[in-house]
Amino acid sequence: MDNKKENERIDDLEIDNLRIIQKKDGFCFGIDSVLLSDFAKNIKNNSKVIDLGTGTGILGFLLLAKTKISKIIGIEIQKEIAEMAQRSIRMNKLEEKFEVLNYNIKDIDKVLKTDSYDAVITNPPYKKINSGKINDNEMKLISRHEIKANLEDFIKISFKMLKDKGALYIVHRAERLVDIMAEMRKCKMEPKRIRFVYSNKTSESKLVLIEAIKNGRSSVRVEKPLYVYDNDGAYTDEILKIYNKNSKGD
Amino acid sequence: MDNKKENERIDDLEIDNLRIIQKKDGFCFGIDSVLLSDFAKNIKNNSKVIDLGTGTGILGFLLLAKTKISKIIGIEIQKEIAEMAQRSIRMNKLEEKFEVLNYNIKDIDKVLKTDSYDAVITNPPYKKINSGKINDNEMKLISRHEIKANLEDFIKISFKMLKDKGALYIVHRAERLVDIMAEMRKCKMEPKRIRFVYSNKTSESKLVLIEAIKNGRSSVRVEKPLYVYDNDGAYTDEILKIYNKNSKGD
Repeated sequence: MDNKKENERIDDLEIDNLRIIQKKDGFCFGIDSVLLSDFAKNIKNNSKVIDLGTGTGILGFLLLAKTKISKIIGIEIQKEIAEMAQRSIRMNKLEEKFEVLNYNIKDIDKVLKTDSYDAVITNPPYKKINSGKINDNEMKLISRHEIKANLEDFIKISFKMLKDKGALYIVHRAERLVDIMAEMRKCKMEPKRIRFVYSNKTSESKLVLIEAIKNGRSSVRVEKPLYVYDNDGAYTDEILKIYNKNSKGD
Repeated sequence: MDNKKENERIDDLEIDNLRIIQKKDGFCFGIDSVLLSDFAKNIKNNSKVIDLGTGTGILGFLLLAKTKISKIIGIEIQKEIAEMAQRSIRMNKLEEKFEVLNYNIKDIDKVLKTDSYDAVITNPPYKKINSGKINDNEMKLISRHEIKANLEDFIKISFKMLKDKGALYIVHRAERLVDIMAEMRKCKMEPKRIRFVYSNKTSESKLVLIEAIKNGRSSVRVEKPLYVYDNDGAYTDEILKIYNKNSKGD
């Protein structure tokens, strides 16, 4: 069975025999999605989940492998990418648990029931328009820059789709922490758990993982730092564990 | 010369031969003030600084020892504490550089010139009213709970007193991070530098150090974590250095 088209490749996710189709020159999943799916492992069994901006479907596949959610609906604005994720789902025989809809996230309250989901997970575009280098590849552009929907849209639609006390899991650039905290507070998605990711012990944080609760009470837990590399430049034991690899000592 | 009254003690700050008078049963300075004065070491030479809620004066003394600021004005609402800080200032012969005014921070724009200060530093009360255990000692109560002024008051008056691009340095409970970020954004005091303090490598963060800039551009640096204790339960080298002690290796 040849699932991939020209200019695509199939990667092994090294968990539950899952594989994923990605563009050779498109936006490939990175460590941020892997860390976010691990951060979201406290998601309740049988949860119904929405993935906003699902891309290749990576977050859905990892959540299905790592948790006991009952259903995940991925929302992807780019038709070609949505269709590629759908082929990955068929390839993994996960059609009953994982569905991808080709919509702008801002419109999903018209096709899905609001106030109904247990969790939302998202790895949204990180960059504001007019900030950072603009990539001339259109698909990467939408994945990386807030062109079709901005941070506020992602938080607002999460509030709309979640049940009361439902959880939003998001990964973002640490430099945008204030934007995220201020928007979440405004939108009644209260950050309850935050973890900063550091490249190593001497570096500033580049990424931040956040769990926010719809209508949650104010007060947040800042968890212990997550380091990617140890002093020798090798992956830390925690990262190896997240990647399902044996740690160095094994 | 006997500077202390009954029920007071004099402590050596172990820097620049400075000493400080504290209540035996009152709020004594802790590691948060020491860490904040170290975090604020990037304060510009010849800065005019305000310390909001100066207490015993600890932040003023440490800043005068660690930086080259030209003047610090401490604001303290409790008359007896303000007077005690003034005695410490005289004892250290710092009357020309350090002044303590007995006011509510909310009223200082009536006695000091607004838009005029290079920096504000503050270790404000951490607890909201109706949260946490209430201490029956009145002085500790005002130092610890937001009775006379709340977080919003501290941020608003900082904005009012600072020059454009002036810096606010604050230490607070990490669990109140969202309150702080949201209020600062609202008040145009933009967080630009954040450092989380962790007791040790496995614990959540209890304290956070923040530098915010009046009318600053949005984008924040999350600095490397600051650990207080190492794996053996001893102070880390960084903490020993901040406390002006030789590190364990010396």
